[in-house]
Amino acid sequence: MTIGFRLLKTDRTTGARLGVLETPRGDVPTPVFMPVATQATVKAMEPEGVAGSGARILLANAYHLHLHPGEDLVAAHGGLHSFMNWPHPIITDSGGYQVFSLPEREISEEGVRFRQQKNGEPFTLTPEGSMAIQEKLGADIVMAFDECVPYPTPYPYAKEAMERTVRWAKRCLAAHGREDQAVFPIVQGSTYADLRRGCAEELAALDTPGIAIGGLSVGEGLEVMTEVLGHTLPHLPPEKPRYLMGVGLPEDILACVEAGVDMSDCVIPTKYARSGVFFTQVGRLRITRRNYRKDRFPPDTNCRCPTCAHYSRAYLHHLFQSGEILGQMLATTHNLHFYQQLMANIREAIQQDRFAAFKKDFLSAYFREEKKTGHVR
Amino acid sequence: MTIGFRLLKTDRTTGARLGVLETPRGDVPTPVFMPVATQATVKAMEPEGVAGSGARILLANAYHLHLHPGEDLVAAHGGLHSFMNWPHPIITDSGGYQVFSLPEREISEEGVRFRQQKNGEPFTLTPEGSMAIQEKLGADIVMAFDECVPYPTPYPYAKEAMERTVRWAKRCLAAHGREDQAVFPIVQGSTYADLRRGCAEELAALDTPGIAIGGLSVGEGLEVMTEVLGHTLPHLPPEKPRYLMGVGLPEDILACVEAGVDMSDCVIPTKYARSGVFFTQVGRLRITRRNYRKDRFPPDTNCRCPTCAHYSRAYLHHLFQSGEILGQMLATTHNLHFYQQLMANIREAIQQDRFAAFKKDFLSAYFREEKKTGHVR
Repeated sequence: MTIGFRLLKTDRTTGARLGVLETPRGDVPTPVFMPVATQATVKAMEPEGVAGSGARILLANAYHLHLHPGEDLVAAHGGLHSFMNWPHPIITDSGGYQVFSLPEREISEEGVRFRQQKNGEPFTLTPEGSMAIQEKLGADIVMAFDECVPYPTPYPYAKEAMERTVRWAKRCLAAHGREDQAVFPIVQGSTYADLRRGCAEELAALDTPGIAIGGLSVGEGLEVMTEVLGHTLPHLPPEKPRYLMGVGLPEDILACVEAGVDMSDCVIPTKYARSGVFFTQVGRLRITRRNYRKDRFPPDTNCRCPTCAHYSRAYLHHLFQSGEILGQMLATTHNLHFYQQLMANIREAIQQDRFAAFKKDFLSAYFREEKKTGHVR
Repeated sequence: MTIGFRLLKTDRTTGARLGVLETPRGDVPTPVFMPVATQATVKAMEPEGVAGSGARILLANAYHLHLHPGEDLVAAHGGLHSFMNWPHPIITDSGGYQVFSLPEREISEEGVRFRQQKNGEPFTLTPEGSMAIQEKLGADIVMAFDECVPYPTPYPYAKEAMERTVRWAKRCLAAHGREDQAVFPIVQGSTYADLRRGCAEELAALDTPGIAIGGLSVGEGLEVMTEVLGHTLPHLPPEKPRYLMGVGLPEDILACVEAGVDMSDCVIPTKYARSGVFFTQVGRLRITRRNYRKDRFPPDTNCRCPTCAHYSRAYLHHLFQSGEILGQMLATTHNLHFYQQLMANIREAIQQDRFAAFKKDFLSAYFREEKKTGHVR
């Protein structure tokens, strides 16, 4: 088992957990937020800047990297870490989420058949195929190939997809051979309590160092997500880290940490940055708005990131108005710092048994302005 | 006089000069190449990365910065250095070159009248107006407002524009009041030897710490440019630095240094980088070409820049094919390093009285492949 997890403590009044994910490439304090490097790059960032934000683990995508540049090329470079110049831990997603979003995919027990975008040729991605791709990519943690259903999904189909996901997870574990990689299976079951519980119990019985929760953050909203987590997490073994995939906004992350999630990833901080949205302690700030044209304050007056240390809202507004790449670079730097600082504050609060108060205070400051005006600043 | 120049030596067999441009923000060894930061940013680069390439002086543009974000806003930030987080010297171009490229401009003795792109309102840029804008922007060196004619231009019009440029230079000096800024006038005269000579002599008589040469690199070609420099430079005082505007490719820079130019600027290293062209010791390399798809060598096997230290051609090819901003960032980093390393090598060669041999060897290696195959690598 290459990946370990030490559960240091659970918050006194909530389900929030403080821990350490132990990997061959270093320890990662949890709860952790993982920036997304879909195509082997965190968009608009050099890896040194990503590490400078405090991030120590990234999520890359097996499906995208299979299409381009191909897992064999990455393997010839000695794997993803060397290919993209990121010496810290990496997870790869299995491609499940991506191929199920394709238009003409056909699902069978074997796998998912679809047309490849690059050449129109049919291709079948199977649990075994996904493992082979991910072994070549060489991440520290690889994800089982799962069937992610949209929201909402009728019970019979959600059940069928969940059961297939369990069978596929077992095939993934049987096929996977790299001893320096860990495989995390993924709990599915849509919004149905018994399906989530059943899936969680079946996957918990497998010999894996961690378990992921998929099929959330697909449009169901924060309330339903929290409900589903309530049906899922109690049935997972406390000694294994729980990775909630694709979450989210700061308020979503606080909710999932409160429920007992240890790891999450999302494109939101980087994607929003590229459209000029800065996350700050007092809410989101859309730098392209005209009222920042002459504003000489930093984006977030309480932030110590390199962007806030050196640049004004007016300069950043100018960069976005002028279509300058530097605007996207500096905004991404800030948002990654904001997310990592949020996670550091969350961990400190759990350590001090005051997570509930921290969450309340954070959300109160974060939404005060937005509630007053009805829109982001 | 805030800007000084020490001429250290002239190469034994060519006109190449070794010197130091002295500014309140630090000394700049010459010959120097200045990256372009038109809109107060070197495109796709953080200023720390620009400085990391060895660059110590940038060129920004008064016309573009007047349009957006406006000189008053920059002044409210304490000037360009603070606005864009660049503590080293800056030059601003006067806007002459830009407004003469506009479609419906009308030239009179007063200045140039044109419609502003942002609101369609007519605006007249005058020598005095350009000085006022540049004083507010706060660069260390500001350029006189000149009339740059296209190539080719009939003699009578070239003469008229040159004479107006001289009158405008005098008005610029009379209007300019900031003692911590130096003004450089600009020699015009198209390709006509007597006009270039006359203009050089008139401007040399003015009390300025440096002189620029404009109206070149506008399509006349390297041979004609060298010829014009031969008609111009001998009539400039050797104790003043000579700044050739808008040049150029490595071969152009070598030719102008050989003729006795001390400073130059160009968008080429940054612009080419963003389309995937890397400058290397053995010629240009177009990273988007299919033959780099699996190439694990760095872009330039002899380069010690951060890009060549950490990334393969295959990874960079992947980034460009995937439309990832990091590709443009890493290519720009490399090209800026390449240009600064070229200038360092040029200065060392002049110091050792072997500039002619250096130029020959450089060009021989640089063009070997391109001459063999007829295209960039």
